Amino acid sequence: MDYKKTGEMESISIDDCDDRKLAETIIATHPIPPFDKSPYDGFAIRSLDTANASQHNPVTFKVTEHIGAGHRAQNAVKAGEAVRIMTGAEIPYGADCVAMFEICQTYEQDSNHFMTIKRTIKPGQNIIIKGSETSQGEILVEKGTRINPGVKALLATFGYAKVKVVKKPVIGVIATGSELLDIEQELEPGKIRNSNAPMIVSQIKRAGGEPVYFGKLIDDFEQSFEAIEQAIQHVDFLVTTGGVSVGDFDLLPAIYEKLGARVLFNKIGMRPGSVTTVAEWNSKLLFGLSGNPSACYVGFELFTRPIIQMFLHDNKPFTQTIQATLEEDFPKPNPFTRFVRAKINYRNGSVYVRPAGIDKSAVVTSLSNTNALMVLPGGTRGFEAGAVVDVLLVDSLSGQETFSISHKKVKRQI
Amino acid sequence: MDYKKTGEMESISIDDCDDRKLAETIIATHPIPPFDKSPYDGFAIRSLDTANASQHNPVTFKVTEHIGAGHRAQNAVKAGEAVRIMTGAEIPYGADCVAMFEICQTYEQDSNHFMTIKRTIKPGQNIIIKGSETSQGEILVEKGTRINPGVKALLATFGYAKVKVVKKPVIGVIATGSELLDIEQELEPGKIRNSNAPMIVSQIKRAGGEPVYFGKLIDDFEQSFEAIEQAIQHVDFLVTTGGVSVGDFDLLPAIYEKLGARVLFNKIGMRPGSVTTVAEWNSKLLFGLSGNPSACYVGFELFTRPIIQMFLHDNKPFTQTIQATLEEDFPKPNPFTRFVRAKINYRNGSVYVRPAGIDKSAVVTSLSNTNALMVLPGGTRGFEAGAVVDVLLVDSLSGQETFSISHKKVKRQI
Repeated sequence: MDYKKTGEMESISIDDCDDRKLAETIIATHPIPPFDKSPYDGFAIRSLDTANASQHNPVTFKVTEHIGAGHRAQNAVKAGEAVRIMTGAEIPYGADCVAMFEICQTYEQDSNHFMTIKRTIKPGQNIIIKGSETSQGEILVEKGTRINPGVKALLATFGYAKVKVVKKPVIGVIATGSELLDIEQELEPGKIRNSNAPMIVSQIKRAGGEPVYFGKLIDDFEQSFEAIEQAIQHVDFLVTTGGVSVGDFDLLPAIYEKLGARVLFNKIGMRPGSVTTVAEWNSKLLFGLSGNPSACYVGFELFTRPIIQMFLHDNKPFTQTIQATLEEDFPKPNPFTRFVRAKINYRNGSVYVRPAGIDKSAVVTSLSNTNALMVLPGGTRGFEAGAVVDVLLVDSLSGQETFSISHKKVKRQI
Repeated sequence: MDYKKTGEMESISIDDCDDRKLAETIIATHPIPPFDKSPYDGFAIRSLDTANASQHNPVTFKVTEHIGAGHRAQNAVKAGEAVRIMTGAEIPYGADCVAMFEICQTYEQDSNHFMTIKRTIKPGQNIIIKGSETSQGEILVEKGTRINPGVKALLATFGYAKVKVVKKPVIGVIATGSELLDIEQELEPGKIRNSNAPMIVSQIKRAGGEPVYFGKLIDDFEQSFEAIEQAIQHVDFLVTTGGVSVGDFDLLPAIYEKLGARVLFNKIGMRPGSVTTVAEWNSKLLFGLSGNPSACYVGFELFTRPIIQMFLHDNKPFTQTIQATLEEDFPKPNPFTRFVRAKINYRNGSVYVRPAGIDKSAVVTSLSNTNALMVLPGGTRGFEAGAVVDVLLVDSLSGQETFSISHKKVKRQI
């Protein structure tokens, strides 16, 4: 977070603003409602004229006009006059209340319309006063908020035809490893298809970034160095997968060194993703994620996603983390904190969590039905069903201000 | 649901498949891993050769090759030979285990490389067997599933360069009402800007549909009839807002009649949205939502969204509904079931809910921080904090098979 960057603002059409983050605080440019209006179909009258109305003393009004929403009465309402008014229409000058249809009787005589009422109406009754819902100048939505359908409705209401949003960070993606085939290639002995790059591209989009895929690299130092040096010029952040471990063909450490990048960390006491590396070069962060699919996924969610949210001016950049009750035993011992792909369930007001599938770190299949990562603190021999654990909601659109997982030993550990 | 339609399939590039719904079940086109592979950096050897190895009897191997992931050994491993192997590489023919670097000592002599080991290794040790994670032909993801980053990784792994997804339903949007201004227009007396159309367009996108906005209509019968009759030819479903109540300028009932559309219902015992109308014309559903912003929002989420999910072959078309504990009193009496815009919070494994703001049905401002709709059964005088209520998670990407809200009276009602 010490190396965070915040994005610039751009002005776009409201038609294109869905899911973007606001670069400005939205205020009410006018009161809501912008005029005194009727919440019902009825007759706008002077309350004074109903002062003596009763079951035994009906009062009759002459209906002078008939207005729907969007239309205004031509004349002020005078004593004994009523304007037939529809829901949402502006209260005519002179009127100070609305009598709903349900309590009015109407008749016609000599081509004139009349309305009779048998009860009193109070001043202000059935009128939504100008500004009663929102005052002009009121702060409605904070900068950094994601634009959902409700926010968009507000933008439209207050005339924001152009919306100032934060430019998406451009994030380069490079996959490394001589074993990688492209998606359309047939399998070859000893090789596997590159699934990390499409996955990260997808994670970047979900997080609100703009991915640029630079292709895959074989384990050749010069070629890889050049490709990475080139790519980094064109992006705000660069994500690579693979090549960060200590194997003979793991080239990233040497590439960072030749680049002159400053390695912030290259080992983390967690599983999967212990080799996750983050380096800084020329104020740009380089995320060296593991080549292992699960570790790559987790590394992105824990380290890259919050930096994207920061770039987008979101003051809640960290993935929403909640507590949930473990639904089944997790008997695997682990010295390190484990982030297990998981699925949350709700029952009777409580939240439960279970692993999404087998959790071998190389297994890609359990990623598909993951909507959460459950956090199992290290230094235990496993956990029993019933333990309350932290869970990161990776599908959630809400965030939080701090990264807060419990490293405390939880109850019901084995 | 009796009038549901299901969408056709289209084949698109994997690059464009994010958030689309699968039109085919995804199966493993090959085993995972596709070959026996090493989970560690080490030496591939014959376990037999370590049978007599011990602290006092080190066994030495000649290192014949050096392979990284993506490369295969040239020759089979014979007695007394070892292949230096990196994580992810294919186990050479002849070898049946891997000795991790940590337990091996290496040295060089006369330009030859050697490795010494002081313990026995079991057959199969440190080998991930072909197909041990996923067998060929295994069903991985069901038809109708939304493509998230994990699903995309699977598609890439198994070579789905083209992905069969469900075509998005084309959904027309028309706003009605003479009071409506376009977003870029200055406010005029008695008028308000059209916020429902942009909101619905946004809700359609969130639900996975393809919105087409046909503009706004003034309250003129012939003009409105023609516009709606035209629009409906070009869409799978049509959503209108406004004009469905019983006001003098509410034209939709007459338009449905002239169209020959069959009105399925035009009144619902709920707040807001009691005037929500759904009609069927030529196997197309016409959603006549209220002109009131909240009622329009709720009507869409309750009635239009599940029909969109059905179209997308989702077997869980209804919005995920959970139970949560009310955090504050809601003292408003209501004869009808109320859908209150709300925000959910999590604490210590439990879910809580509170209203998102003032809940007058005409108030647009509280829509912006809504991530849920809480359901308060009708026939009560209000609810006390502590009551457990149903909550629809409108931001959730998960669905459920049935629409299930409780109409039972809940505890702690007033």
